[in-house]
Amino acid sequence: MLTRTLAGALLAALTAGGAAPIEAADPLPSWNEGPARRSVVAFVEKVTREGGAGYVAPAERIAVFDNDGCLWSEQPMYFQAFFIFDRIKTLAPQHPEWKDKEPFASVLEGDVKSALAGGEHALVEMVMATHAGTTTEEFEKIVTDWIATAKHPKTGRLYTEMVYQPMLELLAYLRANGFKTFIVSGGGIEFMRPWTERVYGIPPEQVVGSSIKTKFEIRDGKPVLVRLPEVDFIDDKAGKPVGIQMRIGRRPLAAFGNSDGDLQMLQWTAAGSGSRFCLYVHHTDAEREWAYDRQSSVGRLDKGLDEAQAKGWTVVDMKKDWRRIYP
Amino acid sequence: MLTRTLAGALLAALTAGGAAPIEAADPLPSWNEGPARRSVVAFVEKVTREGGAGYVAPAERIAVFDNDGCLWSEQPMYFQAFFIFDRIKTLAPQHPEWKDKEPFASVLEGDVKSALAGGEHALVEMVMATHAGTTTEEFEKIVTDWIATAKHPKTGRLYTEMVYQPMLELLAYLRANGFKTFIVSGGGIEFMRPWTERVYGIPPEQVVGSSIKTKFEIRDGKPVLVRLPEVDFIDDKAGKPVGIQMRIGRRPLAAFGNSDGDLQMLQWTAAGSGSRFCLYVHHTDAEREWAYDRQSSVGRLDKGLDEAQAKGWTVVDMKKDWRRIYP
Repeated sequence: MLTRTLAGALLAALTAGGAAPIEAADPLPSWNEGPARRSVVAFVEKVTREGGAGYVAPAERIAVFDNDGCLWSEQPMYFQAFFIFDRIKTLAPQHPEWKDKEPFASVLEGDVKSALAGGEHALVEMVMATHAGTTTEEFEKIVTDWIATAKHPKTGRLYTEMVYQPMLELLAYLRANGFKTFIVSGGGIEFMRPWTERVYGIPPEQVVGSSIKTKFEIRDGKPVLVRLPEVDFIDDKAGKPVGIQMRIGRRPLAAFGNSDGDLQMLQWTAAGSGSRFCLYVHHTDAEREWAYDRQSSVGRLDKGLDEAQAKGWTVVDMKKDWRRIYP
Repeated sequence: MLTRTLAGALLAALTAGGAAPIEAADPLPSWNEGPARRSVVAFVEKVTREGGAGYVAPAERIAVFDNDGCLWSEQPMYFQAFFIFDRIKTLAPQHPEWKDKEPFASVLEGDVKSALAGGEHALVEMVMATHAGTTTEEFEKIVTDWIATAKHPKTGRLYTEMVYQPMLELLAYLRANGFKTFIVSGGGIEFMRPWTERVYGIPPEQVVGSSIKTKFEIRDGKPVLVRLPEVDFIDDKAGKPVGIQMRIGRRPLAAFGNSDGDLQMLQWTAAGSGSRFCLYVHHTDAEREWAYDRQSSVGRLDKGLDEAQAKGWTVVDMKKDWRRIYP
């Protein structure tokens, strides 16, 4: 015992004067060694090395992340669609007319495919029936309650347990290196905000998404914001750079996506001056998650994959590059 | 000399062991002692006192500031209007038709009053002629160049030298106490962003304002965002709570304004749970700045003044409460 204490004291004395520092814990333990991981680390080290040619001031270290298929899963359909269908079922008693009215009738019969057969018009109708008509505070509570209890039909997990562990590590790694992390998603902004801070460490003011209009009113002497059945902004495809400029006001230094819907966001990011970083998550793991790309109706990655290869953007092969998928 | 050195050493020895700390520098040196200053300090101390009943976590410490008349002057007209008129003169050679077309003809003749006689329609026409048609990068450069050189007709100062020193101190004081400071202004968002970080310490992503639509395009292989002659959002009056929810996504803990255009923002803030803080800057100093309120066409403060008195919001009397106006 004494000997070990003495040895410890000796070691402390020796290392106090400038010996090698203790190895820092790996900030990306769920990323396998390989080109994807190396490209991320090399980029972060380049832009944070003070005095280096690639140095970027912290204020300009803006990183934008798609959500569906990039930070959490999106199969067999966007998780917000499950929310919509659950809400229709919950609200059905107040809407007896839905029994005979499409697309609601199909949803109530559990026939999602028929419900979606009406295309964009039917989808918008379902979105408005389930997302509008409440105050912003009421809607926040509806989402908070749903996300705390609803389970994915295939995995049986909470949806927030289907976030990607390697991406959580990446978000934390970027923030530890002075980056400000944003979500830029085609999903509904108020569907994400109630839980992104807890799950991703991304506060509401750093969430960009699609939105419906709201209206300020005084109800019984109390100001409220009422959600209207009218599209305000679609934050997808060419809308993503628009949303980034409108809500963030600077061009990102790094952008992360997984589908053709993110392509313009990555193009906009890549076209900035100096070093920029673009990454696509490629869904290649049918066993641990899902495998899909060019032919998928959800999260199609076709043109984006070609452009990533042509421009040398990083492409994560989920099967090879990620040691684990979910936390 | 020796005696003083010894006394100094003695003092150092005595104070090292827990004597009273050196008085911290006053964070609000341009604020005179009085109820306005006291209310600000009391609020900040209450929400930051850990373990206290009024404690608010840093993430929720959102403070929103109007810009025109709250952070910088707005007389004899909004400074963005000077920008518009200057731009019309600069662009006139490319628009020979403006010589015979109102409101442009009046602007080119230096007759601002006639130019504004056309009301909202004429104003929108002038805004679109001067704010749309460029890319976002081009517009940023136009604003940056103008703000660096244009001088106010009465004071001869740069417009960014007509910001309020007491408000600069207040912004810094709030940030030092863990607040995130935002601008929520009726002014154009892209007219403010190029200089708010340098002048106020408020980064582009924390600026909320009025906007026109933009469109993503690939020009000569390079992605650009083109500014369109179409109103996207008016961030004024009932639009301010809407803008706050849309762009920030949390209710502010503190709100600062100076006109009836800020009333709904203050109402929305005040209606939150727990402690909230609302402050109006009242323009009472005709000598050092301007004196105006209920009858002014610019920055009218009428209903807001009544509501502030009724609800006990803080009202800054610029003449009495501020030791200095500009830096």
